[in-house]
Amino acid sequence: MSGKSFNVAVAGATGAVGLVMLEILEERGFPVKNIRLLASARSVGKRLRFRGEDIPVEELDEHAFAGVDIALFSAGASRSREFAPHAVTAGAVVVDNSSAFRMEDHVPLVVPEINGDTIGNHRGIIANPNCTTIIGVMPLKPLHDYGRVKRVVASSYQAVSGAGAKAMEELKNQVNDYVHGRDLVTEVFPKQISFNLIPRIDEVQDNYYTREEMKMVKETRKIMGNEKIAITCTTVRVPVFRAHAISANVETEKKITREKAKELIGNFPGCAVMDDPGNDVYPTPIFTTGRDDCYVGRIREDESIENGLNYWVVGDQLRKGAALNAVQIAETLAAKFM
Amino acid sequence: MSGKSFNVAVAGATGAVGLVMLEILEERGFPVKNIRLLASARSVGKRLRFRGEDIPVEELDEHAFAGVDIALFSAGASRSREFAPHAVTAGAVVVDNSSAFRMEDHVPLVVPEINGDTIGNHRGIIANPNCTTIIGVMPLKPLHDYGRVKRVVASSYQAVSGAGAKAMEELKNQVNDYVHGRDLVTEVFPKQISFNLIPRIDEVQDNYYTREEMKMVKETRKIMGNEKIAITCTTVRVPVFRAHAISANVETEKKITREKAKELIGNFPGCAVMDDPGNDVYPTPIFTTGRDDCYVGRIREDESIENGLNYWVVGDQLRKGAALNAVQIAETLAAKFM
Repeated sequence: MSGKSFNVAVAGATGAVGLVMLEILEERGFPVKNIRLLASARSVGKRLRFRGEDIPVEELDEHAFAGVDIALFSAGASRSREFAPHAVTAGAVVVDNSSAFRMEDHVPLVVPEINGDTIGNHRGIIANPNCTTIIGVMPLKPLHDYGRVKRVVASSYQAVSGAGAKAMEELKNQVNDYVHGRDLVTEVFPKQISFNLIPRIDEVQDNYYTREEMKMVKETRKIMGNEKIAITCTTVRVPVFRAHAISANVETEKKITREKAKELIGNFPGCAVMDDPGNDVYPTPIFTTGRDDCYVGRIREDESIENGLNYWVVGDQLRKGAALNAVQIAETLAAKFM
Repeated sequence: MSGKSFNVAVAGATGAVGLVMLEILEERGFPVKNIRLLASARSVGKRLRFRGEDIPVEELDEHAFAGVDIALFSAGASRSREFAPHAVTAGAVVVDNSSAFRMEDHVPLVVPEINGDTIGNHRGIIANPNCTTIIGVMPLKPLHDYGRVKRVVASSYQAVSGAGAKAMEELKNQVNDYVHGRDLVTEVFPKQISFNLIPRIDEVQDNYYTREEMKMVKETRKIMGNEKIAITCTTVRVPVFRAHAISANVETEKKITREKAKELIGNFPGCAVMDDPGNDVYPTPIFTTGRDDCYVGRIREDESIENGLNYWVVGDQLRKGAALNAVQIAETLAAKFM
């Protein structure tokens, strides 16, 4: 960093992602001059801990951004649509974790390890990709740089944290009720999530894919800067608290051996290889929770096509899938573009 | 049935699959003259309920099969290898749920709806396929008959029941300990299974695929009677009690629309379509538990290739994935070949 420090606002500070943003800003020593914690009216009056101080939560409204340099938004797409323009008008650069602006042409959609250089093109708003997209695209990039990715078939195993703090509470409450022999209560998810799988995340589109699935398709192409990569996926909610996993099948133009893939992924910043399955070395959500890297294992050449690979990637949905990636964008912004 | 009745032995009667075999034999009115319940020495003395009677468990040994017409084995591959030949010598036809004989040329590997006609080729032993293979191959068959399947990419979401009764107990105990704030005990699985995913099932082979994954590849081809189908898969254990799910991507020679796929799968015996995702109509493991059909939903044309489909299939691992399929084999055997 340049030695400067910044006035930072966190919009949606009391949510699952917002709380992790505060942790990560502190842990990584982001140069915060003043912090402003913003949330909806019903959270006003709460106080959150940051660098040893109890900071009061203020209301997220159009006047909240005076003097703010960087605004990290994680308050949902409709709040981003409503308030991000006010933050920009007030002179802040917005790093938005919602889907509101991701596919707009003039908004960079950034995973810093992959396309951090596009941050400089912003016109006030930089978008943080969907959590599953970030975790999926991380090992894809080094494979693409070496062997040109032609097609990806992905199936996700997504933690409840992706649906927010109340969803995490619902899983916890359901197992509690299960253990005590009580009826399970389902309010956040469309079906029971404990001991179950829900093969629908977000709204269903006209093509019968969910929005979550189409985010993976469209956002991956935008981040990779390549509209030609063929991608299809199925996204599934699983009874795991906070790390997402993806089973990926990748076809490349050039052959990539298992050993080469391990080397490429292992050398890519933000990725780590855990791959000795016979000795039970492979990433799991429990292992990955609270860690920054995307962990990749079960790397195998796919014998069903000429140049194919299968692998399994796991990343903490709240960290690299959301808060960490947003803070990394803010770091690059602060260091190079402010 | 022909009006005849049969002396039936169930080897491994006290296991997770064995108990469901008894339920299903009774429920479907299989023509049992006498039943013999066999298990390892430590279960001798237990009694199990069948058609209103308490039947004593006897020891599974080489003398246990005198007078038995049909022996249903679900006691693990090593017990099958040891005792199935004795059952055959004693004059019984063995329906074996283990992996011991599945890939042997002279052993029919049967899903009755698909290749029930091969039962007549047996030389004393008929093999019941791997649970995930059965559930995966059910919707594949009608798609293949119509449009010729070229390639399958599958990712599984497998319940703990596939690892037996103790594995189901382990998941239950772990959530119980979690709720009570105690340390979790992991004995059956290589890692914690509650709130976690384990991307390894069975031993890892030289090609870095697990035996479970290679079973899906090889057994699917044998059941379909087609060695040319290209198949690759990743099998994952999930914290679900007893129904397996598969996310499948299928490439065909001839185009199959979503509507056509719904029709083909819906008309196939043993399959049912649940597919109105916008109204949360899709199969889940909780819904499928205790049901006989393989339920298929999330059917979508795959826009990443010319003739592709994605779908999600869920089946009860203990029923169609194991005990039901074995009893269906015995039914066909009894009705047509004895």
